[in-house]
Amino acid sequence: MTTVAAYAAPAAKAPLERTTIERRAVGEFDVLIDIKFAGICHSDIHQAREGWGEAIFPMVPGHEIAGIVTEVGSGVTKYAVGDRVGVGCLVDSCRECDNCKAGLEQYCTVGGVGTYNAVGKDGKPTYGGYSENIVVDENYVLRIPDGLALDVAAPLLCAGITTYSPLKHWNAGPGKKVAILGMGGLGHMGVKIAHALGAEVTVLSQSLRKKDDGLKLGADHYYATSDEKTFQDLKGTFDLILSTVSAPLNLDAFLSLLRTDGAFVNVGAPEEPVNLNLFSVIGGRKTLAGSGIGGIQETQEMLDFCAEHGFGAEIELIRADEINDAYERVLASDVRYRFVIDTATI
Amino acid sequence: MTTVAAYAAPAAKAPLERTTIERRAVGEFDVLIDIKFAGICHSDIHQAREGWGEAIFPMVPGHEIAGIVTEVGSGVTKYAVGDRVGVGCLVDSCRECDNCKAGLEQYCTVGGVGTYNAVGKDGKPTYGGYSENIVVDENYVLRIPDGLALDVAAPLLCAGITTYSPLKHWNAGPGKKVAILGMGGLGHMGVKIAHALGAEVTVLSQSLRKKDDGLKLGADHYYATSDEKTFQDLKGTFDLILSTVSAPLNLDAFLSLLRTDGAFVNVGAPEEPVNLNLFSVIGGRKTLAGSGIGGIQETQEMLDFCAEHGFGAEIELIRADEINDAYERVLASDVRYRFVIDTATI
Repeated sequence: MTTVAAYAAPAAKAPLERTTIERRAVGEFDVLIDIKFAGICHSDIHQAREGWGEAIFPMVPGHEIAGIVTEVGSGVTKYAVGDRVGVGCLVDSCRECDNCKAGLEQYCTVGGVGTYNAVGKDGKPTYGGYSENIVVDENYVLRIPDGLALDVAAPLLCAGITTYSPLKHWNAGPGKKVAILGMGGLGHMGVKIAHALGAEVTVLSQSLRKKDDGLKLGADHYYATSDEKTFQDLKGTFDLILSTVSAPLNLDAFLSLLRTDGAFVNVGAPEEPVNLNLFSVIGGRKTLAGSGIGGIQETQEMLDFCAEHGFGAEIELIRADEINDAYERVLASDVRYRFVIDTATI
Repeated sequence: MTTVAAYAAPAAKAPLERTTIERRAVGEFDVLIDIKFAGICHSDIHQAREGWGEAIFPMVPGHEIAGIVTEVGSGVTKYAVGDRVGVGCLVDSCRECDNCKAGLEQYCTVGGVGTYNAVGKDGKPTYGGYSENIVVDENYVLRIPDGLALDVAAPLLCAGITTYSPLKHWNAGPGKKVAILGMGGLGHMGVKIAHALGAEVTVLSQSLRKKDDGLKLGADHYYATSDEKTFQDLKGTFDLILSTVSAPLNLDAFLSLLRTDGAFVNVGAPEEPVNLNLFSVIGGRKTLAGSGIGGIQETQEMLDFCAEHGFGAEIELIRADEINDAYERVLASDVRYRFVIDTATI
């Protein structure tokens, strides 16, 4: 075991503060990663504030991790010291269920092990990326292609894969009209990826405040959802709406924007239940679905895809002592488009 | 125009009573059908009582119609006098939108013309099957195969196609675990059809009261949803749940019964909005969808499929003066499994 510096929430809703945590010794199949950058995901805030239910404290959030391998276990075959690597939302899963075998570790039926706010197979709490280093089984480590800078790669490990996976699964591509609902950390990645996949991309954002950015990142159209006319103009338009919003939504209104057989796919996770008139899906045989991150193999595919298309996330690099302020700015949608912690400042 | 006897609701929530209505003269492409039997669908009650919103009165419900052709227009090519035919929920649609051209008239983007409680292209209200005869454009008339008796064929025109269409669309068949939620008029057809398609069929009904029937009609398993243990035992089981229930449901509980990538498809239409925790679809990439009846060509396919497999609906034949009592019994789930009006008694 080694003692490492980290930023942790000592209790629900308490501000994060500098502390130390213990990392396990590097096991046979483990990789020790010197963390260089850690993205701040909205779900860090949901969990640190127990918005999604009871959580484990102290909590070191962070599941958008990019760094360099500094040590490998004797059985490790995939990585070597000096490799540029990432860790996303999962650091383990049962590896035996149908989903794990199919590369759908994110839907492990036994329950995967989250990168933080979870309990590892050793019975100990997991701690995430707001820290100096992390020890992870090589099977849950991703390779960051050379073409991608580590700081803009970090957010891909959650925001990238969370949007890439459903866009691929619901066949975003040439000839498809795809709307990205919400222009935040997830949304801006959704725009880049959907555009790179060849779809016709529309951003649906509360206001037109970020319109210039949206068009620059690859959107073909940009509409404000605060404008009632948007719902008249776009009725029956989309094959796919990817919702990255975790605030309550008027689902019926958004379902009306789908064409027949269209899908509204939720990757944002509201803390409260939503209301739905089932006629909104019966008319036009529509789908309301959800999607959670992606599997390990698909995450690697996504990283390679982003590198091939020459983009990472749009980020604001911050010092560790700015984390609490950054949380407030995330809640106020005041970030373009992902805060990334320079972990050298911890 | 001809004057024909019918049973109509004179106003919202008023009992149905015998009256007369006008049918249009048989036009160039029209078929005059001597109605022999008309099924009573739960949606007749929703509409006659304005449960789904403002309706047109007097209302002659009935969109499960079986009868004999007694006259055809000069341009009619598909039907001849003496043919055994049916009419379902639609008597017209725009015929020009993408959906109509694709045989998805039920999702006509202009809006199809309902068999009753709608306004036809001539600007006049449409009247349904609780009457002596009906005049319908030949393109919206179905052929009832010889092997099917007219009385048990009538309910196929709504209950049959409403379950057949989503079962086919979501690939119910060999190797698939399909649950039919609700064991009423729609549900019992869902069981028969899913079984005939080769799926492993489970009925989820409020109680075990109709278990013997369910197993006889083709179900492999039968569970009571009033029993909490059902939700523990069947967690993560189904590829597809077809919900025929129009009462409010605990959707989150039913979504937990789906396996990864499973779909909960609603064909019952609750009058009130439902509540949903979006985590219920995010975990396991699940789908909540809806489906409404089926297209004209698919309805014919369904009739042929049922004839080939040798089944119609399970019915209780009633006289026209029993309609109001039948409505009460439908609301009390006290029918095995579809009331069919012998229209000779009107």
